[in-house]
Amino acid sequence: ACDDKGQMYMHVKAFEYMMKNNALACNVKFMIEGEEEVGSVNLGGFIKNNKERLKCDVVLLSDTSMISNEIPSVTVGLRGLAYVEVEVTGPSHDLHSGTYGGAVANPINALCEMIASLIDPKTRKITIPGFYDDVADLTPEEKKLMSEIPFEMEEYKQELKIKNTRGEEGYTVIEQASTRPTLDVNGIKGGYIGEGAKTVLPSKASAKISMRLVPNQKSEKIANLFADYFKSLAPDSVQVKVDFHHGGDPVVVPIDCDEYRAAAMAYEETFNRKPIPTRAGGSIPIVKLFEEELGIKSIMMGFGLDSDLIHSPNENFGIFNFLKGIETIPGFYKYYAQLKKAQKG
Amino acid sequence: ACDDKGQMYMHVKAFEYMMKNNALACNVKFMIEGEEEVGSVNLGGFIKNNKERLKCDVVLLSDTSMISNEIPSVTVGLRGLAYVEVEVTGPSHDLHSGTYGGAVANPINALCEMIASLIDPKTRKITIPGFYDDVADLTPEEKKLMSEIPFEMEEYKQELKIKNTRGEEGYTVIEQASTRPTLDVNGIKGGYIGEGAKTVLPSKASAKISMRLVPNQKSEKIANLFADYFKSLAPDSVQVKVDFHHGGDPVVVPIDCDEYRAAAMAYEETFNRKPIPTRAGGSIPIVKLFEEELGIKSIMMGFGLDSDLIHSPNENFGIFNFLKGIETIPGFYKYYAQLKKAQKG
Repeated sequence: ACDDKGQMYMHVKAFEYMMKNNALACNVKFMIEGEEEVGSVNLGGFIKNNKERLKCDVVLLSDTSMISNEIPSVTVGLRGLAYVEVEVTGPSHDLHSGTYGGAVANPINALCEMIASLIDPKTRKITIPGFYDDVADLTPEEKKLMSEIPFEMEEYKQELKIKNTRGEEGYTVIEQASTRPTLDVNGIKGGYIGEGAKTVLPSKASAKISMRLVPNQKSEKIANLFADYFKSLAPDSVQVKVDFHHGGDPVVVPIDCDEYRAAAMAYEETFNRKPIPTRAGGSIPIVKLFEEELGIKSIMMGFGLDSDLIHSPNENFGIFNFLKGIETIPGFYKYYAQLKKAQKG
Repeated sequence: ACDDKGQMYMHVKAFEYMMKNNALACNVKFMIEGEEEVGSVNLGGFIKNNKERLKCDVVLLSDTSMISNEIPSVTVGLRGLAYVEVEVTGPSHDLHSGTYGGAVANPINALCEMIASLIDPKTRKITIPGFYDDVADLTPEEKKLMSEIPFEMEEYKQELKIKNTRGEEGYTVIEQASTRPTLDVNGIKGGYIGEGAKTVLPSKASAKISMRLVPNQKSEKIANLFADYFKSLAPDSVQVKVDFHHGGDPVVVPIDCDEYRAAAMAYEETFNRKPIPTRAGGSIPIVKLFEEELGIKSIMMGFGLDSDLIHSPNENFGIFNFLKGIETIPGFYKYYAQLKKAQKG
């Protein structure tokens, strides 16, 4: 699978290759993190407590994708994340919807209304006051660079079997999905969800809601803005609880540095074309953690494709991509060592 | 439990008492229906196919409640029901909310918006076009009768642990919960609903929605109005399916007839006060079925209380109520036989 057992294993195989061929000109430390998809609750403490052990020049990680098998890319930006869980409580226990319906607030209806109020129906902008205050708009140059990434709307719609996209007004699909903040309900539940019908007016309803963040939004600030606004949306007939799951701040990696150059040279060698720097829509909180705790840049060399169905049933990872990763990774070590040596020399 | 094993068993015990004391002046046929809470899908066919066997003068049923143990009441009206299940589909499979979030429609967000649009946020009126066309407003006399039913707002709120009620503008709580139509989401689900967080942009979200109907709304007509309107609310980025579960038309029982009079006399005898005729918010489709298929009136002698937690964990039925039912039911048979005889004589 692409996210992330397959990509992790590329590094093991690349290391094996370099060791067998005596091709490694530097030391390598491995850190394999198994909790990234559930919020990495233990990682922050581990890094704080093992700064000396984790000391290094650069972090190389493969948890992203490329544009296509023909067009390699290096991820130079990630969205951050603020993940919350909300619970709306009406009456203290489930009620018969015939006896109480029409008079007593239904927490599912209330939750739906509150969720609906979080996004403007026309512009699809998030309505939380202050939400966009820190958002760094794309520069004209960045906008131009992004517009060069190949994108076929009809193919995109066909692949997802959708009639239309539904993003923020004034932005392209690529911009919407990587450089603009979002608010998505990742899960919702309330009342009777088995087969058939039950006429219950439930006591509670809850939803998992995540916001993807972009430079220079801060996860903690956004989670607090969300909580304040969401609570303010509640009618006085229900009670609202907002819990924070986890978050991560957005990241941008510069492209005018040896770390990026080494990666670009490695891709060029194996793909016969320069990679395009792209910004990914997902979040990898570890990148921000390494930067803040260890002062180290992370280079994101991903070999997956957006079509790998990650986080979905039948997630996969192409054999071409797996092998191309094993081929490309040693190039990064080679060029990075050369560039560092040249710099020192 | 009150709804309805306990109330059913009152009739068995009352029958046993009458047989032992030779107090029964008429024939009794029992029909025990075990599927009422799941839509009674087999009942319509059974009644149609057994008209001769079910022939009788009046149906007596206990599936309702009284005002209180001090104030008996006979239910003379029931709300109808139209129960639908809706499903909103976005992309053909679950997606990573980082890679696609912001561009691809989220079916949970869309479902919440659509549900929120079904009720006017200020007046709490249902917004489905044509929904109120057939609603029979209460006459001033009916309104006056209802206002005489004791109701303590503070007690009501305290019992349900709510700060406020949330009903249709311009109606009292008792009116809202028994004589006005409703729209309640009885269940909702979509995306990841387990413990913790998952950053999924789900393919589907669904909800069970029921509408309580009042005279003279028709269940089938309302279900169709709902389906048309709900589909019209969908953005072009999702697809919507509406399935019908079951329904029942609302019912009103006249109070100037021997059937009602016999019940009233029976209550008066055991409670030492005349019962108040009330309209219940729930639905008992069998009442309409008996009326339509067999041309028979149903008398609803209920002995439960609204505080019996029906359809909720710890549903109960008071021993006082159980015994009072056994005591009162034989009175109905006695007075009804007397009134019928007087009529014939």
